[in-house]
Amino acid sequence: MNAAFETVYGAAEPLDWLCLAPHPDDAEIGAGGTLIRLAQAGRAVGILELSRGEKGTQGTPDIRTQECVRSAQLMGLSWRGQLGLIDGEIVDTPKSAHRLAAALRVLRPRVLVVPHFQDRHPDHFGAYHLSKRAVHLAQLQKAYVAGEPHRVSRVLLYQGNADITPTLLVDVEGVQEVWAAAILAHESQFAGAAISETVTPEIVERRRARQSYWGTLGRVRYAEAFEVEDALLVDPAAL
Amino acid sequence: MNAAFETVYGAAEPLDWLCLAPHPDDAEIGAGGTLIRLAQAGRAVGILELSRGEKGTQGTPDIRTQECVRSAQLMGLSWRGQLGLIDGEIVDTPKSAHRLAAALRVLRPRVLVVPHFQDRHPDHFGAYHLSKRAVHLAQLQKAYVAGEPHRVSRVLLYQGNADITPTLLVDVEGVQEVWAAAILAHESQFAGAAISETVTPEIVERRRARQSYWGTLGRVRYAEAFEVEDALLVDPAAL
Amino acid sequence: MNAAFETVYGAAEPLDWLCLAPHPDDAEIGAGGTLIRLAQAGRAVGILELSRGEKGTQGTPDIRTQECVRSAQLMGLSWRGQLGLIDGEIVDTPKSAHRLAAALRVLRPRVLVVPHFQDRHPDHFGAYHLSKRAVHLAQLQKAYVAGEPHRVSRVLLYQGNADITPTLLVDVEGVQEVWAAAILAHESQFAGAAISETVTPEIVERRRARQSYWGTLGRVRYAEAFEVEDALLVDPAAL
Amino acid sequence: MNAAFETVYGAAEPLDWLCLAPHPDDAEIGAGGTLIRLAQAGRAVGILELSRGEKGTQGTPDIRTQECVRSAQLMGLSWRGQLGLIDGEIVDTPKSAHRLAAALRVLRPRVLVVPHFQDRHPDHFGAYHLSKRAVHLAQLQKAYVAGEPHRVSRVLLYQGNADITPTLLVDVEGVQEVWAAAILAHESQFAGAAISETVTPEIVERRRARQSYWGTLGRVRYAEAFEVEDALLVDPAAL
Amino acid sequence: MNAAFETVYGAAEPLDWLCLAPHPDDAEIGAGGTLIRLAQAGRAVGILELSRGEKGTQGTPDIRTQECVRSAQLMGLSWRGQLGLIDGEIVDTPKSAHRLAAALRVLRPRVLVVPHFQDRHPDHFGAYHLSKRAVHLAQLQKAYVAGEPHRVSRVLLYQGNADITPTLLVDVEGVQEVWAAAILAHESQFAGAAISETVTPEIVERRRARQSYWGTLGRVRYAEAFEVEDALLVDPAAL
Amino acid sequence: MNAAFETVYGAAEPLDWLCLAPHPDDAEIGAGGTLIRLAQAGRAVGILELSRGEKGTQGTPDIRTQECVRSAQLMGLSWRGQLGLIDGEIVDTPKSAHRLAAALRVLRPRVLVVPHFQDRHPDHFGAYHLSKRAVHLAQLQKAYVAGEPHRVSRVLLYQGNADITPTLLVDVEGVQEVWAAAILAHESQFAGAAISETVTPEIVERRRARQSYWGTLGRVRYAEAFEVEDALLVDPAAL
Repeated sequence: MNAAFETVYGAAEPLDWLCLAPHPDDAEIGAGGTLIRLAQAGRAVGILELSRGEKGTQGTPDIRTQECVRSAQLMGLSWRGQLGLIDGEIVDTPKSAHRLAAALRVLRPRVLVVPHFQDRHPDHFGAYHLSKRAVHLAQLQKAYVAGEPHRVSRVLLYQGNADITPTLLVDVEGVQEVWAAAILAHESQFAGAAISETVTPEIVERRRARQSYWGTLGRVRYAEAFEVEDALLVDPAAL
Repeated sequence: MNAAFETVYGAAEPLDWLCLAPHPDDAEIGAGGTLIRLAQAGRAVGILELSRGEKGTQGTPDIRTQECVRSAQLMGLSWRGQLGLIDGEIVDTPKSAHRLAAALRVLRPRVLVVPHFQDRHPDHFGAYHLSKRAVHLAQLQKAYVAGEPHRVSRVLLYQGNADITPTLLVDVEGVQEVWAAAILAHESQFAGAAISETVTPEIVERRRARQSYWGTLGRVRYAEAFEVEDALLVDPAAL
Repeated sequence: MNAAFETVYGAAEPLDWLCLAPHPDDAEIGAGGTLIRLAQAGRAVGILELSRGEKGTQGTPDIRTQECVRSAQLMGLSWRGQLGLIDGEIVDTPKSAHRLAAALRVLRPRVLVVPHFQDRHPDHFGAYHLSKRAVHLAQLQKAYVAGEPHRVSRVLLYQGNADITPTLLVDVEGVQEVWAAAILAHESQFAGAAISETVTPEIVERRRARQSYWGTLGRVRYAEAFEVEDALLVDPAAL
Repeated sequence: MNAAFETVYGAAEPLDWLCLAPHPDDAEIGAGGTLIRLAQAGRAVGILELSRGEKGTQGTPDIRTQECVRSAQLMGLSWRGQLGLIDGEIVDTPKSAHRLAAALRVLRPRVLVVPHFQDRHPDHFGAYHLSKRAVHLAQLQKAYVAGEPHRVSRVLLYQGNADITPTLLVDVEGVQEVWAAAILAHESQFAGAAISETVTPEIVERRRARQSYWGTLGRVRYAEAFEVEDALLVDPAAL
Repeated sequence: MNAAFETVYGAAEPLDWLCLAPHPDDAEIGAGGTLIRLAQAGRAVGILELSRGEKGTQGTPDIRTQECVRSAQLMGLSWRGQLGLIDGEIVDTPKSAHRLAAALRVLRPRVLVVPHFQDRHPDHFGAYHLSKRAVHLAQLQKAYVAGEPHRVSRVLLYQGNADITPTLLVDVEGVQEVWAAAILAHESQFAGAAISETVTPEIVERRRARQSYWGTLGRVRYAEAFEVEDALLVDPAAL
Repeated sequence: MNAAFETVYGAAEPLDWLCLAPHPDDAEIGAGGTLIRLAQAGRAVGILELSRGEKGTQGTPDIRTQECVRSAQLMGLSWRGQLGLIDGEIVDTPKSAHRLAAALRVLRPRVLVVPHFQDRHPDHFGAYHLSKRAVHLAQLQKAYVAGEPHRVSRVLLYQGNADITPTLLVDVEGVQEVWAAAILAHESQFAGAAISETVTPEIVERRRARQSYWGTLGRVRYAEAFEVEDALLVDPAAL
């Protein structure tokens, strides 16, 4: 048992990749294709929902949690859980950062995928700033954080509802069907009437258009886009 | 008769908007929806091809010119013409700039739409730099350029085959059918086998995905994106 | 009666444009010419002071409120009011954001004009960040905010006491006299001794020089400058 | 005798500061106050006109040269001369760059002041690019350039007719009268009818407004603005 | 006695330069050479530690304070003190800002040197944001801050553990030995085992490599790099 | 035999990586460690010198060519050759671009490494612009270029003598000795007196300091830095 977060799927063991989602469907929409590819390649991939999306116009926390489990199965995740912050109030506070840092020490991801700092939704840029402090705390020996210190190696930013200037593109043509199914597993959001630009039955068609746009730039059919803030240490032979 | 350029459609009279296209289909692909909307709103709109696209893998200059005429009819253009620069060698030279400046003095556009300076294709960024010099020459009384000096009021940059950070978006949902037809009028490029990312029968589907991406950001279904380099003088009551 | 704010002039009805001012004279100094032009064009324009400027070296809240009323009359505003945050402590907190969101739901502006995020004064960049969260909350159905959800269509940033790189310029030559009178209506700030770069009898001369600078760039005599962060959806026929 | 350039005022001896002007009045308008302050502080200051401004709507090369001499006297310059490039065609070519490099080897400035690369006028950004190549050639031992190699220590960019984001500001309040007189010495440009935004009897009033704008940002009354591209080596005790 | 901070070395009198350090060794590592040069040139230079570094893996607050005193002697500082914020929780709050503002009113620095806003360590960017609010409060007559209002003239940002794009470089070749000794005076951090990229006996060698990198760009052997956000008012004769 | 270039080492067969060097030692200094690592990993790596460095103060073309051969052996290159452009006049012309494009069609690199566009040396930014045009021509079927069309997949920019903001870092600790030897193989440049910042016996020490600087940022001991302009398509499982 770990007080920092709650597991809804799989076991909270060290992961290769962890994606932070302010609300239950953000990870699928913004980085889902990439996470599926990684899971298919045998990586241990997880999603940590920062809130349970309780401010969303549709769905309830319980329904949305069940949808998260279903989507996790489809994506082949190793783990999915919830941090339990308040939807609509995700900001960088020392208290929330210590909580997230404790989660990072349990989940020990090598790569952390977080929302982009330029976004219309305050929970998205709030999550970005919160993650920055938590990544620092997680590695600090004297921080008041449970667990063994852990250093995240790479931080990638995924796209929310604003334009970004990507550093990296990931080909997601091969996982289109799984990706669409994982998004649509969030039935409470996408099976009813259109509520907003995001909460709409057309969500897959819209985000596929986005993937097609990035695909054009990467000379593939569909791609997801990520921004990296620090210079990325790479093996040149893998380029 | 005017030595600076050759008319292929309509009459070379003063225009409201003029779009510069390095090759015969660039204007349709990058700014077609906007040009069609303007023509439908009663504006005098023209396209000036800088080259005849003679280096393209498919089509011949004559065939492509006929396609330009057909597309001009569909778009409702007031005029279309060719400057006759060499395809693949569109660069900013004083000679080419004087020629383009002479054309600007005849066509007298209030708004000029030019390719973006960040592009993979040298003819595209070459056209951008060339247009900058020509705009200056066109207004200079003592320039060795035929015709009455003319000052272009606004310059907009349209997207080619690289990502841009747009200043302006234009809703093009209502002109989707005309726009698709205008592109496909360039049969030599888009009715045969796929040659490249651009020269492909899928061109409409691909660029529609782009319009969908920009549409998402502008909260409309489809939008075209433009960048403006100088601050734009606007009537606030029209915002 | 609405607990979120206090009206000092006019009636709190839906507006076309609303300008957020950290202190009682910021709107006049930074965006006054534009607001006057809009009012003269028949738009319903309002100003919401976030604080009553009680930390200012000169004037008292009551005196400054009377000056606000006088200036509102001169500008032709439809409404002016105060949110009652603490001068010098305008920061982005959930509590303040909910309060501002409630005001936005009453005033329902289509265009919101806010201070720029790059500014020397913490209340100015604080107001920017606060407005971003409030705009989001105002449209969120399940937010704990009184009133019907409202979505602001456009957000413009006006210049405070730092340099900006403007997206838009507005010609304000025709409203110079009204604009100067509206600023000088804040007698407690501008009729006495010079206290700072801003609080000085020379304020009109200084900000007119700024308008002249932007005017030069827009090829008019005097202009106000605004920055827009997202791409702006426009009607091309109005350009 | 040196073929690279022609002296119109003073003696071509090593200078502390040299300002490159595409046309006869650009240096006064963009950097005049700073050059006057330097001359008054005992520095050897010069201006090299790249062209004789023969494409200007008003004036002739001979008249403009006389105006240059008169202005040089007022400013207290040590030297003024002309490189003789063609007005309207100032571009970065190896030939022009070798000519400018030869001039730099004679004039040996420690600080070089050049037009900004972001400008509407092709001669201005052309001059910037040309100066970059010439600075390199001037220091290259094996370059085919007459004279002893010389390395310019600092390059400053001055403002033309576009907005810039300045690195440095120079207080020019104390030299307002001399500066205005030096500009107005170019009678052929500024004593007649208004021809353009720049060629107008209001030039001093307009550029003083610009200086007032930058002054506000630097907390002085009037300032000129410069951009520096490379990090500037400074003595911290002088800050 | 002043409640805002505690003096550990020298007397709290008006300073020329003040460097803010989140933790006891940050000033030496990031700006030490420059501070030493200034002290040697007769300037009154001080360092204010925002925290006592109590979260550091090695050392205790008392030991680290003694090391600060020793280093202050070596550097020739006029004053060194501690603000007493909590290590690991340095954020921009009104309370902390008022405390720092009160310190600024006592120490009255003309130039303030603060950590850069782009840094991996939350205490570093936190200190940047905190300093911005405090600088504003310190000059505000009606702020609830003890002491006479004071306006800081210049703010410089020094490098922490991320790359920066410097505005200014300072030659620090002549103070290499003193600088190394001042860093190594922090024995608890640098005399033991390597704990992290920063806490390591190799710290001098690593940061000297950084100085060598900046030196190459400034054409000196070793340089420290600073960024300035606002345009810098300079005496051109000193360039 | 191929008229486009001359081979000085190895056989001109298709390569994995090709580095463009304006002068004979630029590739070693800016990207040498990375090229050595790639060669050790079994990649076919080549260097194409654009000029023979005949304007350099020291050495002759023949001597420098022999040094290139010696260095190529040390680095384990598959091929090294010369394009024969004029040192000091490397600019983007159609003629030079066609020549380089022909070379690219023979050498067929998947990854092309080119000088950065921001550099003090005109040959460096000239090479960047030239490479952009040549990459385009090489893939254009109807270009007047000998050989089968070839599309370069990735373009990386390496650092010259200006600061850059890197996208990628490559760990080069393990190849320090070979790298130093490869540089020093250019005896004519580095075995004699110091001529400039670059031509000096201290070159290895200086560039190792640079590698140490980038290493600090990448958390390795020594790293080389590269910038990538377009978003980079990557396999996420390799991150």
